[in-house]
Amino acid sequence: MNRRSAKSEGMPKGGSAPRLDHVGVAVADVAAALRLYRDLLGLELVGTDEVPEQGIRTHHLKLGEAELELLEPTDPEGPIGKFLAKRGPGIHHVAFRVADLDATAKRLAAAGCTPLGEPSRGAQGKRILFFHPATTGGVLLEICEVR
Amino acid sequence: MNRRSAKSEGMPKGGSAPRLDHVGVAVADVAAALRLYRDLLGLELVGTDEVPEQGIRTHHLKLGEAELELLEPTDPEGPIGKFLAKRGPGIHHVAFRVADLDATAKRLAAAGCTPLGEPSRGAQGKRILFFHPATTGGVLLEICEVR
Repeated sequence: MNRRSAKSEGMPKGGSAPRLDHVGVAVADVAAALRLYRDLLGLELVGTDEVPEQGIRTHHLKLGEAELELLEPTDPEGPIGKFLAKRGPGIHHVAFRVADLDATAKRLAAAGCTPLGEPSRGAQGKRILFFHPATTGGVLLEICEVR
Repeated sequence: MNRRSAKSEGMPKGGSAPRLDHVGVAVADVAAALRLYRDLLGLELVGTDEVPEQGIRTHHLKLGEAELELLEPTDPEGPIGKFLAKRGPGIHHVAFRVADLDATAKRLAAAGCTPLGEPSRGAQGKRILFFHPATTGGVLLEICEVR
């Protein structure tokens, strides 16, 4: 195993590294998903939230310091409803918690990553911003900031 | 937000809840992925590993207490080589670290989740086992144990 230190190109001095905030999973059957993650695997359900603007209900399960976010569509025309119709249930996105969303967004955009709109309020009141997977190696990448 | 305590159906008494070990991302362009995650987002590259039996090279980036695992194919006929050919780069799997892999595997299998083969040694010497996404709500779910 090779070990080398991280480079810090473009990173602000003193900027703390992101940590994993959550993994978002699109679910077609919430009861089955809760049976798997909560009842069989033993994850604690710490809350549910409604995000009407996105047409979703979210279920948050504690997974160490991160969370598993189950994404249940409340509107078939919302992004999760469409994802399910097109691709079926499964892992939808990964979210990094950053210290400064605006600075991080600017750095990513300058490097060619395309933000999907402007920062908004997501589940749990976090400020969030997604980047288009075509510009991030196929990963629907969310950055979020908790203030 | 509704809060309720976790149920513990089928969970062994005193069993500690899983935490997120890593998120696996299939990459077609390792240099571009390192530029994004290490150089732009500031994640520390803590190691690389070779898993010839799976036809992959893994790159591990620290993400809080979890890791981002970049999966680079070394064999186009291996699982990641085939995944890339079929679906392109993107999030591949999510791995939960459990206290007792065998007990967890038995519990999941009894509930209808289908393991992909037998537990084996994965990157970083962990004992790992995957479950078929058709039996886990579309998620390629890995459980792993560190001993």
